[in-house]
Amino acid sequence: MAQEYPVYGRIDGPIVMIGFGSIGKGTWPLIERHFEYDADKFTVIEPDARQANFLKQHKINHRQVALTPENYRDVLGELFAEGKGFCVNLSVDTSSLDLMRFCREMGVLYIDTVVEPWAGYYFETTDNAARTNYALRQKVRDEKASNPGGTTAVSCCGANPGMVSWFVKEALLTLAKDTGRDVDVPQDRAGWAGLMQNLGVKGVHIAERDTQARRQPRPRDVFVNTWSVEGFIAEGFQPAELGWGTHETWFPENGHRHDTGCHAGIWLERPGAITRVHTWCPTPGPQFGFLVTHNEAISISDYYTVGDAAEPKFRPTCHYAYHPCDDAVLSLHEMFGSGTQQKVHHILTEDEIVEGIDELGVLLYGHEKNALWYGSRLSNAETRDLAPYQNATGLQVTSAVLAGMVWALENPEAGIVETDEMDHARCLEVQRPYLGPVEAHYTDWTPLQDRWEHFPEDIDESDPWLFRNVLAT
Amino acid sequence: MAQEYPVYGRIDGPIVMIGFGSIGKGTWPLIERHFEYDADKFTVIEPDARQANFLKQHKINHRQVALTPENYRDVLGELFAEGKGFCVNLSVDTSSLDLMRFCREMGVLYIDTVVEPWAGYYFETTDNAARTNYALRQKVRDEKASNPGGTTAVSCCGANPGMVSWFVKEALLTLAKDTGRDVDVPQDRAGWAGLMQNLGVKGVHIAERDTQARRQPRPRDVFVNTWSVEGFIAEGFQPAELGWGTHETWFPENGHRHDTGCHAGIWLERPGAITRVHTWCPTPGPQFGFLVTHNEAISISDYYTVGDAAEPKFRPTCHYAYHPCDDAVLSLHEMFGSGTQQKVHHILTEDEIVEGIDELGVLLYGHEKNALWYGSRLSNAETRDLAPYQNATGLQVTSAVLAGMVWALENPEAGIVETDEMDHARCLEVQRPYLGPVEAHYTDWTPLQDRWEHFPEDIDESDPWLFRNVLAT
Ligand SMILES: NC(=O)c1ccc[n+]([C@@H]2O[C@H](COP(=O)([O-])OP(=O)(O)OC[C@H]3O[C@@H](n4cnc5c(N)ncnc54)[C@H](O)[C@@H]3O)[C@@H](O)[C@H]2O)c1
Ligand SMILES: NC(=O)c1ccc[n+]([C@@H]2O[C@H](COP(=O)([O-])OP(=O)(O)OC[C@H]3O[C@@H](n4cnc5c(N)ncnc54)[C@H](O)[C@@H]3O)[C@@H](O)[C@H]2O)c1
Repeated sequence: MAQEYPVYGRIDGPIVMIGFGSIGKGTWPLIERHFEYDADKFTVIEPDARQANFLKQHKINHRQVALTPENYRDVLGELFAEGKGFCVNLSVDTSSLDLMRFCREMGVLYIDTVVEPWAGYYFETTDNAARTNYALRQKVRDEKASNPGGTTAVSCCGANPGMVSWFVKEALLTLAKDTGRDVDVPQDRAGWAGLMQNLGVKGVHIAERDTQARRQPRPRDVFVNTWSVEGFIAEGFQPAELGWGTHETWFPENGHRHDTGCHAGIWLERPGAITRVHTWCPTPGPQFGFLVTHNEAISISDYYTVGDAAEPKFRPTCHYAYHPCDDAVLSLHEMFGSGTQQKVHHILTEDEIVEGIDELGVLLYGHEKNALWYGSRLSNAETRDLAPYQNATGLQVTSAVLAGMVWALENPEAGIVETDEMDHARCLEVQRPYLGPVEAHYTDWTPLQDRWEHFPEDIDESDPWLFRNVLAT
Repeated sequence: MAQEYPVYGRIDGPIVMIGFGSIGKGTWPLIERHFEYDADKFTVIEPDARQANFLKQHKINHRQVALTPENYRDVLGELFAEGKGFCVNLSVDTSSLDLMRFCREMGVLYIDTVVEPWAGYYFETTDNAARTNYALRQKVRDEKASNPGGTTAVSCCGANPGMVSWFVKEALLTLAKDTGRDVDVPQDRAGWAGLMQNLGVKGVHIAERDTQARRQPRPRDVFVNTWSVEGFIAEGFQPAELGWGTHETWFPENGHRHDTGCHAGIWLERPGAITRVHTWCPTPGPQFGFLVTHNEAISISDYYTVGDAAEPKFRPTCHYAYHPCDDAVLSLHEMFGSGTQQKVHHILTEDEIVEGIDELGVLLYGHEKNALWYGSRLSNAETRDLAPYQNATGLQVTSAVLAGMVWALENPEAGIVETDEMDHARCLEVQRPYLGPVEAHYTDWTPLQDRWEHFPEDIDESDPWLFRNVLAT
């Protein structure tokens, strides 16, 4: 018996997917499954010839071209000549800001999973402050401020950034309930920020452990990951970055603030993917994560700010604490050790992975119940039953794209939004069937537990949840 | 047709092997193969009941007891009642110093592969200076000084410490030849030290890359290694340590010198197994190694000192730069990340390893040809053809033990010696059939090659080979 899937609505006009990598290829079957649309008008823009055969076999229109600052208006303008439809940007090396701006001009709905710059930006820019996600995000926020409202463009709606912002809200409601507070679901930003403040949350780790593995030992000189290697290397070499909370009493020696913008974040003079933090996930318990910069570290700290941006009354610390799959840990070790990027990249497919889950959640810490992890613990095995062409990591992302598309369709004139600004309940309603077990776990663990006995560390015992304690020695 | 193996001599009296772990089990077939002895008098002291069946099946006498400061004189005294024989110490948690002292009292030849302390010492000692290999080694050197000559006791004769000291000498002779110098083989310590100085060698990395791997992904909560997990964890939590050369112009902020002893080494206030250095091996090229403390880092710097120990004219920097097998890299990441040691330990066996080599050599750097790696590149596959019950890592160690035993038998009244003080040519002659390809590789690489472009690093470009540049940021 064929399974029945909800159809969330009709997309009028063309659907153009930019990028058909691990995420694009996994998003396509979800779009097919959950929307009504004119299949003839589904086009993929993908420069990589290796995808051509698959696209042809599935009768998907394929424009084999790389978008550039020079051609994107021509290519997209032609595809969206009717002035309607949906642009689903799942590429690397394209400017999210330029694409969303142009789509909004044309009246075309837009979604992406990251604020991406044009090719070359990550490595050719020499000013580290300009290479931060803070700077990239701020430009999108400035665009929103100067052009409020209008056609909906959803910024950064993947798993993280994306879904985790919805998890933060669910976690706050869970924590409120479990600490005996009888709260109404907040209806606006101020309400949510106030709730977090009232609950005594000091900060949030985006705490992820990916245990997916295949049987083959990682080959030398190959960067292996469960999603875009190019994307991971790029963000891994950006400066480590985090939203900087009001409870912090110390400032990192290599830390920098920003003079302009939302003031919610700081960055460190050090690549994120070699900067370790102490964190916690349900499966491993305490573990190292890498302080890789991510949009949500800034957006969440910004969204939950109480008071003036420059002199806030309350702001949580927020950052990614990522333990990628073991093969990626080894790939990073090799890359930083050799000083050069591997030329060969490999994304583990759902078919070669023999074990493991992507455990991705938010760890809300510092409150009266110490710490609460809330997230998805999706296995690759379950993923294979849920949707084709992706591993667990992919499905957490693509189902967020699906949810974001549904929300955009239902809110077509919401302007530029981040996932913090969307209806988290509706989005999770759409996404949840694809997330495997979504669970809340409290833990007694703090970053001061089990530190080195024999060696001095730069810690401050007055508050276990200071970033100073979280940052590994 | 059965292969013929040279028999190097007769061991009179009992042979007692202490410890039948990965190294003991691999050494036994080499002893059987290369010595004449009375099989009835071969005894293994091994507390672990899991070895009992194997020992019984091979008709090896087994004393299932753990040596302690209280019982070792009784147990060994009884076994060596005749006052002759050979004590082969391949255990953890026994005091090398006490055992060698007692063997020399009894007139029994002795060999070990590490200066090991009694159980508890590594983690229960709180004074980090006392936890260094410098301190452990110095006690053996002091014993040698107060009791010169007498029955031979070979200290630290494994692969490293051990064989690598012989490689240093071969590498020096190779470098002399390749730089057009017509030198005689030095006959004493002063001669060797002078040769290194004359060649302009600034220092030595014990540069090792272990690529052995099995097909099974590393299980969580299991420390996987290719040799003693207990031994590796213990040394990994000792302070990082190195022989400190006269070319160094900078001193690490967390560095400490010693007031007494040979003055050849310093230690850092940080565990070695989480301290990364830039190094080079033939297979990977540039890579991270861990600055794990090892006896040879001190002994080599000490041996090649020219002039007064406290105010030397010349001394090389020397340290281990160890890239263990990938499963061990992941095990370390897990251990330091969780703050607790894994309870389950696993040593990869030759039968489950499906690929890889142990590439272990010495990288002599700073001279007119920049850097020379000289070492063994032994594969697990070749190992299986050479000797039973061990992987490549094991065979590099056990064949050094064999060589050391041959040398001791041929030099029974040499007193306490380290491998630097032994006839390296004779030892390598015995060991070489077990080392796979032994090769010399020159490289242009220096620690300043391919450093981060986007981030400041604490480097000094005036001399690429300063330890300041070798230490990773
Ligand atoms: N928010 C999240 O949770 C999340 C998670 C995973 C990935 N992502 C982001 O999603 C994007 C896609 O990830 P992926 O794993 O599919 O990456 P991928 O590397 O597998 O695929 C990226 C695709 O973009 C294509 N591309 C490159 N340059 C292009 C150009 N100029 N124009 C059009 N297409 C171009 C590539 O050919 C490739 O097929 C990346 O930006 C990544 O950072 C976000
Ligand atoms: N120099 C080198 O290159 C080199 C290389 C590898 C190992 N080693 C050293 O060799 C030794 C053995 O290594 P391994 O890989 O066989 O280790 P292992 O952990 O496999 O075996 C050690 C054995 O010692 C036994 N043991 C523990 N306590 C004992 C006691 N009190 N009395 C007697 N036996 C005891 C254990 O039961 C175990 O079987 C270690 O000290 C290690 O550091 C040196």
